[in-house]
Amino acid sequence: MTTFPARYAGPTLGEVGEHRAIEEIISAAPSSRNGDDAAVLSHASPNSRAVATTDMLIEGRHFKVEWSTPEEVGCKAIVQNFADVEAMGARPLAALLAISAPPHTPVSYIRGVAAGIADRAGEYSAELVGGDLTSGAELVLSVTAIGSLGGSLPELTLDRARPGQRIVAHGRLGWSAAGLALLDRFGRENVPAEFTELVEAHCAPRLNPGRGVIARATGATAMTDNSDGLVADLGIMARRSGVGIDLHSSAVEPDELLLRAGQLLDADPWEWVLAGGEDHTLLAATAGDPPSGFRSIARVTRGEGVTVDGLEPAYGHGWVSF
Amino acid sequence: MTTFPARYAGPTLGEVGEHRAIEEIISAAPSSRNGDDAAVLSHASPNSRAVATTDMLIEGRHFKVEWSTPEEVGCKAIVQNFADVEAMGARPLAALLAISAPPHTPVSYIRGVAAGIADRAGEYSAELVGGDLTSGAELVLSVTAIGSLGGSLPELTLDRARPGQRIVAHGRLGWSAAGLALLDRFGRENVPAEFTELVEAHCAPRLNPGRGVIARATGATAMTDNSDGLVADLGIMARRSGVGIDLHSSAVEPDELLLRAGQLLDADPWEWVLAGGEDHTLLAATAGDPPSGFRSIARVTRGEGVTVDGLEPAYGHGWVSF
Repeated sequence: MTTFPARYAGPTLGEVGEHRAIEEIISAAPSSRNGDDAAVLSHASPNSRAVATTDMLIEGRHFKVEWSTPEEVGCKAIVQNFADVEAMGARPLAALLAISAPPHTPVSYIRGVAAGIADRAGEYSAELVGGDLTSGAELVLSVTAIGSLGGSLPELTLDRARPGQRIVAHGRLGWSAAGLALLDRFGRENVPAEFTELVEAHCAPRLNPGRGVIARATGATAMTDNSDGLVADLGIMARRSGVGIDLHSSAVEPDELLLRAGQLLDADPWEWVLAGGEDHTLLAATAGDPPSGFRSIARVTRGEGVTVDGLEPAYGHGWVSF
Repeated sequence: MTTFPARYAGPTLGEVGEHRAIEEIISAAPSSRNGDDAAVLSHASPNSRAVATTDMLIEGRHFKVEWSTPEEVGCKAIVQNFADVEAMGARPLAALLAISAPPHTPVSYIRGVAAGIADRAGEYSAELVGGDLTSGAELVLSVTAIGSLGGSLPELTLDRARPGQRIVAHGRLGWSAAGLALLDRFGRENVPAEFTELVEAHCAPRLNPGRGVIARATGATAMTDNSDGLVADLGIMARRSGVGIDLHSSAVEPDELLLRAGQLLDADPWEWVLAGGEDHTLLAATAGDPPSGFRSIARVTRGEGVTVDGLEPAYGHGWVSF
């Protein structure tokens, strides 16, 4: 059972009930579209299509109340869903939040999650437009993101990487996994201050809004995000596209901070880079120069699978549920 | 912990793993839109808006594996979400399914849920376009429905019932609550055969597709569905609209089947009609004649709250989480 730290004082969901709790959520994440049977989004721009994706976060598995603030959990939920929208080349517009929570959950905790969602969604000019709140034994957040894909260019699916293209990346690699390893060893309070950024990359990953749209506009044909691990996610793109992807070790090698964290934990930072997920770094295949904010990290080949400088990667196995 | 009856034999999620289980879901609910980072829906028709809603179902709370087949659970999840889309006057297009399930969950159970979703969504020409599958202690289904609201008429919100209108209903009232009461007393196997329809109304409610669109096209101005209870849901409409709603007892009185179930259980069937939820009956306010498939059940007044023949209802308290 989830134990909420004492800092989340105040009434619980069981004490205030569903309706008061929903009012708290709506006041922390206000939207004129929220509060009816369903949310009606804006008029679609001509020739646009809706894009939708969903991801669940379970306390103790995808986040821990003793490691992350509720605001961070809300951020993480938004970023992992919005990254999937961006990875199609689309623009996130709205989110829905379904929560199952035990009756002893402090209302302030749920309010914090909503505030984190509103904050991070606001960076995309998106809103929390609806949701559901119910009682359950575990704290489960299920977020759905809805976006808009404008214009007539095809969406950026996993199956359109072509030999000769480069793979370009926007975002960090390995930082989330390093942050998780540090939390696992030290707990949130005791992670050495120099690694704060790694911990934050795990608890509340960031993704600059609009990079997916830029990649699509500048000629990318395939895109995904690093959610299960770099090799695992590029491996799916390679298999679906019927190509190989050869990573340049010099372009993805662990940075100074990862090296220091690796030394401290006696861990190989390459594992974080190659097999660590949840960075939500955008990974696109394009024949052109890297779009603004992206860097080249790999080459699409006529081979199969993912290699590093032509060799089998040292770490490949990514995150798998069950 | 959820115990799955022996009829769900075969490998478990823990045995086959996430990827195989997702393949099973996709083969049971096929869609060309599923399988990428996010699902891209069809081009929106001109002047249309997207509509979105989400609802969570928790095993032991919203359904029980010993009472409902997984196909019925999938149906229920679709109908309760699509009813919310219809209640805006919109047409459901697509659903997303996020599942958290314990490792001992039989794959055949999850496949059955997906098949039920595909079956019921298919009645609306809608598809399961995406989702998430993760491991958790409880069996939790989180479904998001996306619909399309065409044309320039306003959506049917809760706040536009006006004095002088009638409230019209499409669907049963009290059947789901009666079915639940019967299951509670007898278990699924032993409910007398004459009440099969009531049990099915609880386990797998039905809603004829397109009635919400018809209500909007024929002049309804406000609409909701009976999910928490007739008096509770109409009470929200009354409060938001600043009106009263007076039910005609003769129009909502328990039918023969409810009366017989009430006798058997020594229960007052009026409680099922007035306070029972989950019928997902559409409840619309209109100044005109009842649209096709609807019947008149109440009058919108200058008063406040919900009354029955001008009097306080005998039962009003609907379903509240926590």
